[in-house]
Order: sequence, then structure tokens, then C-alpha cells
Amino acid sequence: MEVTRRCFKDCLNLVYAAIEEADFLAIDGEFSGISDGPSVSALTNGMDTPEERYTKLKKHSMDFLLFQFGLCTFRYDPKESKYITKTFNFYVFPKPFNRSSPDIKFICQSSSIDFLASQGFDFNKVFCHGIPYLNQEEEAQLREQTEERRSQQANGVGTPSFISPSCSKGPAHVPDEHKDFISRVVEKVETLFSSKEKTVDLEPCTGFQRKLIYQTLNWKFPKGLHVETVETDKKERFIQVSKVDEEERKRREQQKVEREQEELNDAVGFSRVIHAISKSSKLVVGHNMLLDVMHTIHQFYCPLPEELQDFKEVTMCVFPKLLDTKLMASTQPFKDLISNTSLAELEKQLNDSPFKAPETEAAEDFPSYNTAKEQLHEAGYDAYITGRCFISMANFLGSFLTPPKAHVSARSKLIEPFYNKLFLMRIIDIPYLNITGPDLQPKRDNVLYVTFPKEWKTSDLYQLFSAFGNIQVSWLDDTSAFVSLSQTDQVQIAMNTSRYAESYRIQTYAEYIQAKQQDKDKLAHSSKSWTEDGWVRPHYAASAASAGFGYSRSLRKRSISPIQPEQGSSEAAAVDGWSHYSYSDSSESKKRKTDDVVESKTSEGWLKTTEASESSGSSLVPEEGSPEAPDPTEDAEGTLAWQQAAAIPGHISQKTKKKSEAAGASSSLFEVPEVW
Amino acid sequence: MEVTRRCFKDCLNLVYAAIEEADFLAIDGEFSGISDGPSVSALTNGMDTPEERYTKLKKHSMDFLLFQFGLCTFRYDPKESKYITKTFNFYVFPKPFNRSSPDIKFICQSSSIDFLASQGFDFNKVFCHGIPYLNQEEEAQLREQTEERRSQQANGVGTPSFISPSCSKGPAHVPDEHKDFISRVVEKVETLFSSKEKTVDLEPCTGFQRKLIYQTLNWKFPKGLHVETVETDKKERFIQVSKVDEEERKRREQQKVEREQEELNDAVGFSRVIHAISKSSKLVVGHNMLLDVMHTIHQFYCPLPEELQDFKEVTMCVFPKLLDTKLMASTQPFKDLISNTSLAELEKQLNDSPFKAPETEAAEDFPSYNTAKEQLHEAGYDAYITGRCFISMANFLGSFLTPPKAHVSARSKLIEPFYNKLFLMRIIDIPYLNITGPDLQPKRDNVLYVTFPKEWKTSDLYQLFSAFGNIQVSWLDDTSAFVSLSQTDQVQIAMNTSRYAESYRIQTYAEYIQAKQQDKDKLAHSSKSWTEDGWVRPHYAASAASAGFGYSRSLRKRSISPIQPEQGSSEAAAVDGWSHYSYSDSSESKKRKTDDVVESKTSEGWLKTTEASESSGSSLVPEEGSPEAPDPTEDAEGTLAWQQAAAIPGHISQKTKKKSEAAGASSSLFEVPEVW
Repeated sequence: MEVTRRCFKDCLNLVYAAIEEADFLAIDGEFSGISDGPSVSALTNGMDTPEERYTKLKKHSMDFLLFQFGLCTFRYDPKESKYITKTFNFYVFPKPFNRSSPDIKFICQSSSIDFLASQGFDFNKVFCHGIPYLNQEEEAQLREQTEERRSQQANGVGTPSFISPSCSKGPAHVPDEHKDFISRVVEKVETLFSSKEKTVDLEPCTGFQRKLIYQTLNWKFPKGLHVETVETDKKERFIQVSKVDEEERKRREQQKVEREQEELNDAVGFSRVIHAISKSSKLVVGHNMLLDVMHTIHQFYCPLPEELQDFKEVTMCVFPKLLDTKLMASTQPFKDLISNTSLAELEKQLNDSPFKAPETEAAEDFPSYNTAKEQLHEAGYDAYITGRCFISMANFLGSFLTPPKAHVSARSKLIEPFYNKLFLMRIIDIPYLNITGPDLQPKRDNVLYVTFPKEWKTSDLYQLFSAFGNIQVSWLDDTSAFVSLSQTDQVQIAMNTSRYAESYRIQTYAEYIQAKQQDKDKLAHSSKSWTEDGWVRPHYAASAASAGFGYSRSLRKRSISPIQPEQGSSEAAAVDGWSHYSYSDSSESKKRKTDDVVESKTSEGWLKTTEASESSGSSLVPEEGSPEAPDPTEDAEGTLAWQQAAAIPGHISQKTKKKSEAAGASSSLFEVPEVW
Repeated sequence: MEVTRRCFKDCLNLVYAAIEEADFLAIDGEFSGISDGPSVSALTNGMDTPEERYTKLKKHSMDFLLFQFGLCTFRYDPKESKYITKTFNFYVFPKPFNRSSPDIKFICQSSSIDFLASQGFDFNKVFCHGIPYLNQEEEAQLREQTEERRSQQANGVGTPSFISPSCSKGPAHVPDEHKDFISRVVEKVETLFSSKEKTVDLEPCTGFQRKLIYQTLNWKFPKGLHVETVETDKKERFIQVSKVDEEERKRREQQKVEREQEELNDAVGFSRVIHAISKSSKLVVGHNMLLDVMHTIHQFYCPLPEELQDFKEVTMCVFPKLLDTKLMASTQPFKDLISNTSLAELEKQLNDSPFKAPETEAAEDFPSYNTAKEQLHEAGYDAYITGRCFISMANFLGSFLTPPKAHVSARSKLIEPFYNKLFLMRIIDIPYLNITGPDLQPKRDNVLYVTFPKEWKTSDLYQLFSAFGNIQVSWLDDTSAFVSLSQTDQVQIAMNTSRYAESYRIQTYAEYIQAKQQDKDKLAHSSKSWTEDGWVRPHYAASAASAGFGYSRSLRKRSISPIQPEQGSSEAAAVDGWSHYSYSDSSESKKRKTDDVVESKTSEGWLKTTEASESSGSSLVPEEGSPEAPDPTEDAEGTLAWQQAAAIPGHISQKTKKKSEAAGASSSLFEVPEVW
């Protein structure tokens, strides 16, 4: 169902009901661009730390507009053994609410726009009929302004938007060139008093003239008049003056209050949908959803916090339960069965054995999609497909149970290992961002940081390191890259070899991180200026008071932030061959409070992984063609084979056989590396 | 006539012919926004210097997109005594030419977008079917790249976009996981050689796989094959392999060269229209056209230069003869007859006495507009209306001649005083930017720079200065403003009064300018970073070589730049009561070379002006309603009464009577202040 500004209010209850009854929700967003600075390959470097990735996306992706939001709700009908779906395709645009509301600027990236255009995207629906929205702070300020205006009016100050306090006490100062105009207005109003008419419309005029009219009439006729600015369809404003007795005046005031309340709700607009999703605490499924989550929070809740840890906390408040189908498909037991995790390919593969196409049916009055024909990249459709992928994979997990189950619900313990882990695009050794805990910290002691002349190509790096076995190259910019060796014991030899090199320079990853940290410390106090001129972050005056919403920046810092990698620090005890990751003491985060839900997690201690990657050249695929990343949308779905524990299905099913599902399957059944 | 990418090539000759035959051209642009930083009232402060205004517009307006360009050509038909018009409405969008072409980012301002939407603007035409374009540098680089690729191919290096030099010498290194794929391809090609088929299409694959295919086939089958990447409608790329003999191969190569040339012209796209306008050297008319000119040069020629003087030089190369109808209408003899110079109002007034609605007729096959009904803010229509306004005003000038003439051509000497003076929005005492000479330099010794707490409103400033007569307030930001006193002799008294003030501070304009210059000198080396990550200014590698186009950044600085105002400097000799302006020695710029036209200007020395402004409060109109500027589009047309010599029509017509038009009317007939 397409939802624009025109029908938004009528649809809203339908949306609320759909969320309310759903077993889970799937979402997807379309943006006006991906990166306003670095090429996509630099934005998503294979050796980024989660902090770096977050910082880059925040800095270079958030000034784009999320202008289409897809929501598909899935309700399981046990009688029919199928899901009933309701798909909504919202068009979103920050139409200024009134003249003092924020005038949002956003960036468009021509390649992204061109790509969407080629997919038949309807830009007129966005720009002409997009649903407006306000974030929490804007909403709070608007409510405050409205309150203030009301209380001033109650005190008889009149229409303060046009009158500054010092002016309203005496007669208005009317500049000479407006004196004729104003006396004509006064005459008209005097005529109104002596006529049968109840109302007179003045001619359209400028804001300054309206101000003078308000001031003059307020002073000359303190009682018996209702003066109001009316806007024509053509956006011309004129003043309407009405004779009113006290009762009529009160009735009109009451109407005005109601109208203001209504307008305020209209201004909050699409954010109300996100609030409803948030309040429902339902599982929210997305595909490669980190950017979707970041944009959603940034646009409809609050500007993103500086620190990754704070972002994780906000995310848990807005979306208490997330699941990323790209991460799920890239994890055992799916990893070995699914060769390409782009949404389109994933959907195809999940329709074939050993998976089963899920049974879904569109609810009455909702569009049903023909998955064989539909275009991807319409947000509603993508959300629908994402939900279907989730169902196929969830149900597949049921086949490991004894007895096997064909339907695994969104609330099943089998799903839990995949909660709140958002796929990290193209990072070689950190598959996901862990929203509810510290992130994986690969040691990267097989990684070298290489700088070289800008003429160098990947082939030059291959040549240089040909003696040290297979390598993986992750470009940083024209003159630097990370090179991962397949064997850590080659690192020292490579370092030694480079000692006398003149054209290039090699550092270990640890040295690189240390130097970077030092630079960061130096710069700590000199950044942050880029949002100061009202950019995307809107213009409303200070005050703030992030109303209602349960997130507060002053939350004390939790003690679970990942240990900062320190050079030469002794490794935390390696568990079960998890030698490439260090992690913080798991006891610290066994219990954590999220909003009002206390989650209990037990670390079972049998975490799995493998040596990071023998898969030579897999990181080449997206970067190779040209140093400038190719089509960003293709990239956005580009897959990168990251290495993880090979599944041992026998082992899993054996283990599973010991437990009935009622007793709860282990949350570590499937090989999502966990660090708590 | 609507022109999109679909019909652009077919229309181009029509456009060329229309420009060729025209007496003059009118243009107009629609942009995706106005200001990405300051509010419009701060962007167009009443006390800006021309340098400041240029710098602000360059910094805060150029990242928006000019996405609709209107061109209306006017050809006078002397037999019918009317103009024949051809109107073109071009939709423009920087669709990336290929994967290595610049991926332009541009900003949208929601208020501007919303305004255009409310006017029925069709965004799909822009984003889906907009005509691409390249600036001079991009075009030169693309030609260079194409040349380079061709010469490499001639040397047998193959398809260098996929092969780096070091790889092409031996067999391709095929990673293990692609070996099967590649050997299947080789089999297919071997089958092709032994079959009757001439061509085989390989399955779609990734860029990396295509690279491997090119390398492998190049090495295995150095002769007899033509290998080409083909793109399907769905943007999937696959490789087509054809058997060819030497003759066929050459034919195909030739075809390819032609196709490349064609593609290159397609990529230059809309810029070709601007080049044609530029080459024609015809008079180009616009309304309030400074931003149109800046955007046009920025998008289709070159990034705007840092310095205003350099901008003037580029402008003269691109548009040797400009005329701004808003400036013309704001100048005598029109000023006293025209109360509102916004385009819509101007058009209305010019249809009434003493003016005459011009006779125009749309050429065959071109749309004719009904001026009583049409919507403004479609660029083609606005250009058409602008041209009509120019004709009315030009013809009106003919009424001063003896005998009066009903038709005054675009080449008439009567028009010359208005050439190359672009209206400066809302600057109180500098009506225009003088493209062909130094700008007016009002002394502003009646102006004070005031800083105060951010709670202050205009009324507080009125109160503060109430003792010193009428004032004009030009807000700079929340805590500072310029206050112009009507009497210069009050300045010292105001300064003295403020000596012990704690909440506010007053400086003279001269002190303010001096402090600002000092700040600027300090910062001189620390700015310019904002374009460094490929922003709007595109990604192509360095090299440059601004081809063909006659503008070079290394032009020696001309000696005509306006004198820098220095505190306490002795005023340049005041001429004929021109006491509020200083100007540089006119002898320096009597002759200046512009492109290949030598213009000769004589300064007649009887320049006119008046005391700067008694018109109290006129600067209030746009800023007053709210500190945030209201609807920017309304502002863009907002008028500000700037004071100038009162016309003495008797004097003018008297003077005129002395000369026949054949002898050439004086270029200083109408009161455009000139400083050379």
C-alpha cells in the first residue's frame, strides 16, 4: 500500500493495527545517496574497526535523505499455517511545517538518484506528496512554542508571532509609506462594525503589513474582533477580520487550539509510525540494515551520538530487537548453503531445497506481490522479501530439531543468536556490529599497513608480496592499503624485507593503530564544526529537552565497552581456538538492562571461529574494476566472503537431539561468534 | 518546448538555429535550493560589499543544482513589427556518464523543493530524464581518457580499462574459485571457432570476472576475436564474443571510435547549449540574474574562482553582454514608474500605460504562452516573461527620442547603460554588481556595527537609537547588525553615548571593516578545504588543462580592482555630489579587452546619486516577520527600495532632444551610476 501525505492520516490506524497484531516486522529504506565524501570502497574498508565504520557512516551518509520507508508486517495464522502480510510503502519528505520550522537540507548523489530512476522510482511522490516528520527534539520544541503562544494569548498579548512585547503596549509605529494602507484597513473594519456582515477579508499583503494590521487592530479594537491570517490555495496570505461576541470568541479560540493540536500531530507525521514500531518491541527484520537503522534514528529520533557505544544504546531504545537477514545468511548453518547474500539472490536461493519458500498471503485490501516479476528497490517490496527470507531461514532451523518443526516462530529461542547483530559490509574479520555487547576484536597480527606512490595498482601489491603466499588487499586511498598475509609468521619477514625500500613503507597493524590513536588524541578538541550552521540538524533554537522518549544522553556509561586495543597488551585468554579475537571479561555484561526488559544471557564458552581467511582474492571483487567504487547500489549488496567456523551439522543436530525444543535450544547453537 | 534527455539530440539543431537568428536571448534557471548555511536574510545582508556577497553566494549556493534551464530566443520581424519567440525548457541532471565519471553530489533545500512542488514542478523529468552535462575540465579529461585508450588499443594493449599494464604481458592470474568459470568460457569460445555462429553471448558476471575473461581471451586468442561488454536494459553487463576477420575487425574498431565520439558529445550534453549561447555573443537578458549566471558558469564551465574580480572576467568570457531586468526596472527612468520589481509584478505593470505590452508571437511548432494564465517558476516561461519585460522597457526608452521610436532594438545605444550590471539583492547602497568595471564603494560613514545579547529584537535597536533620527537595521546574525543613521553627524554622538554600555557595543563601519580584514589576513591560508573530497567539483584525476575556453586562472590581475577601503584614507575626489561613493581612477580602465572584443568606454564624469536613504524602515520588510527568513522564493523576488538620484525626466528629455538617435544617445542618459 502506497502511503503519501494525502492519505497518511487515514492510513495511520491501519498501520497501528498491523503493527499491533504482527508476529514480526520487516523494514527497508531508500536513500538519496550513500557517501558524500569518500568512494564507497573507502567508506567500507575491509579493515575498519566498528568504531571507524560507525564514524564514517555517520559523517558521510547521514546528510542524505531516507525518502522511502518500507514496512511489511507478518502475522502467523496457525490454522492456515501461513503468514498474513501487510505491506506499506511510505514516501517521506521534510516539508517545512511552517515558516519558523526547520528548513532541512539534504544531499542527493547522482549515481543513486540515477539508479532509482532506472528502477522506476517516482520522485514526484516523494517531493510533492512525501509525509513530513519531526525528530523528538523538534517535536518537543514545537509543542513548547505552541504552549507558549497559547499562554501568551491567554494573557491577552494577542498574536505574539507578529508582535514583540515592547511594541504591543502602544499604538504601532506605522512607516509613512504604509500609513494610507493601514488607514484604509481601519476604515474597512469600522465599516464592518456598522454593517450586517460578520466578516471581512482584507487584500493579500506582505508579512510586514500584516504585522502592522495586527498591531493597529489590537490597539484600536481590543474587544469584539477576531483577527486571523488565512492562506489561499496559491499560498497568498490575507487577513480575515470577524465581529465576535465573547462566546463566539471562546468557541473560536477552542477551535484554534484543536486545530493547532491537529497540525502538530500532522507535523510529527511519519515519526509516529516509527514510534509505534518502537513501542511495540516487536522483532524488526532488515537486510544489511545498519544504514537503515542509522537513518531511521537520525531522521525520526535524534541526531546520532558521537560515540558508537551511545549509538548502540539509542538503538536498543528505538529497536529493542533487531535481526539482519544478511548477517543471518552469512552465518552457519546458512553460510555454506548460500553463495550470494544479496537480497535478490538470497530470495531465489531460499525458494530452493534445502530451504522452502514460505507461505505468505497479502491481507485483504493489501497489494500482493508476484515475487517472480516485481522490481526490487521499492522499499515496501524489499521489506516484504526480507521478511520472507527471514521466515525461510527461521523455518530451516526447525529442521534440526527432534522432531523437526516446519514452523519456527519469530519468538523462538532458535532465533536468538541472530538478534541485534548488524551486518558490517566488507569488513574481512568482523562480520557484524554487536548492538547489545562489545564487538569482536580481531588481533590482525597478519595485517600490514602499506603506503606507496599513487601510480600503484593492486597488481603492484600482489607482485610486492608474492613471496609471502596469498594476500588480501583493502584499499584505504590512492596511496595506502591494508595487506593481509595468509600466514602470520610471514609478517616479520615482510617487515624486514621492506626496511630499505624507498618507494613504499610498511607498518604492522598495531603500529598503524597506535599512530592513528595519537593523531586522534591530538585532534580531539578541534572537530565537530560541521553541523554548526543548521545542516540537517535543524534550526530550532536551543532548549531541547528530549521529551518522552526513553533515551537520555546522560545515561551513565556502561562498563561493557570493548577494551581499547593496546599495543603489546597481553591477549585475553583465548577460548576454544578463538585466537584471532580478544574480548572483554564476559562477567561484566551477563546481565544488562535494556529499557524495561532484563535480558539474561549465559555465555556457554564454546565459541567458534577459524583462522581468518584463506580465500585469496575475495576482497578484490568489488574494489578491482576501478579505484572509484562502481555502482554504489550494487556495492550495497556486494558480498564479501568473511571466514568463520565451518559448520559441523552432525555436531549440531547431535547436540540438539539431547534437548527438546520446549526445554529451549541453546542460544549458541548456530555459529554466531559471541563474546559474552 | 520541453527538452529532456530523450529528445535532446534531436532538438539541438533547432536550439542552435534559434540562437543564431535571435536578436537577443532571455534565460532563467530553477535551483534545488538557495542557501546551505545562513538564512536568506543573512546571505543577502543589506550592508554586504560586492566581494562579501559573491563569496557568500559561492560558498552557500553553489552546491545546489541548477536543474531546469529556460531559454527564450527573440527575433524581431520588422515587417510584422513584432518579435518571434522560441522557448525551450531544458531539464538538466548530472547523470554519471560511465563508471569512472564524476558522481556529482548536490544539495536540496526542502523549502525550495516544496515550493517548486506546489508550482507543479515535475521532478521525475529532472531525475529520470534530465540532460547530462560536463564542465570544460571534465570534458577535456574525458577526451584525454578516450584518446589515451585509443592509442593504447592501437598499440595492442587491449582493453586497458580492465587491464593494468603489468598484467597484460602474461597469462592472467585466475584465483582458484574462478578457474572453473574461466575454463567454461574458454570452452565456449573454442566451440564458437568451430561452429557456424559468428557470435556468442556469455552469461552476466561480475566486473572482476569480466576482467579475467578479457585477460584470458586476449592472451589465448590474440587474433580473430572481437570481445565487447554489452549492457542489458536492466543494467546487467555481459560479454559478447565475435569471430572477425581483419577487415571486420577494423570496421568494428571504426564503429567503436565513432560511437565513443558520439557518447562523448552526449556526455557534454547540455553544456553545448551554453557554449552556443556564449559563442553567439548575443545579449543575454535575465531577471535578478546573478545566481543564474553563477550557477551556469559553475555547472557548465568551471568551478567559480575565489576572487570576485576573476569571476567578473570569466563571466565576460561566457556572457559578453548581459542585462538584468530587475536592475533596469530599479533604475531611472523606470524606478519612479515601477513600484514592485518582482518578475510577476513587473510584467503586469509593463502591460499598462505609460508602457506598452510588447508584440510577441511564438514561432511555429513552439508553445505559445497565455500570460494571463501561466504559472511562473517554470524556467522557460520565466525566461519568456523576462524577455517581454526587457522589450517593454527598451521600447519605452524610445519614447524619449525625437522623433519618438516605438521599437528600440537590443543593439541600441539606449540600452548600453544597463549592460553587465547585475542586480544585487537588498544591498541598501550598492544597486548592482558591475561586471565590466570596479564596483561602487559607498563610504558608509553613517553606518554603525552593533553587537548585543541574542534576546534583542529590531525594536530594541529602534529604542536604542531613537534619539538619532530614522534608522535602517540590517541583521547579520542573532547578536549583531548594521544600523544606518539618516544623519552622518549623529554617528559620533551615538559612539560617545555607547562608551559605557555593558550589554551592547558599537563600532563604526570603518572599524568593523578593518577588524574583518585583519581576521581575513589571519585565516588566508587555512580555508579552502571544503571542496577537497570531490564535492560537486567532480572526481576526475588532476591534470586539468582547461581546454579551448578562453579563461585562464593565470591571467595577470588587472589593475582595476576597487580600492580597498582603508580607515581614515582621504576620500577620492567627489564628483557632482557623488559624495557617498569612492572609486578608482577611471583612466585605468578606459579600455579593457574582453575575449576578442575591445570595448571603448568614456567616463562622462557627471555621475549621479543622492544621500543614501531617508526611507525609514524599508529594510525591515523582509527580515521582520521572523528572524528566520520566510519563503526564500518570495525573498528571491523581494524588493528593497535603494535610494538613488531622483529622476528629472525634463532634464533627460531635454538632453535627449539635442541629439538625433543616429548620432548615438549618450550611454549615461539613464541614471545608472557609473564609475568609469
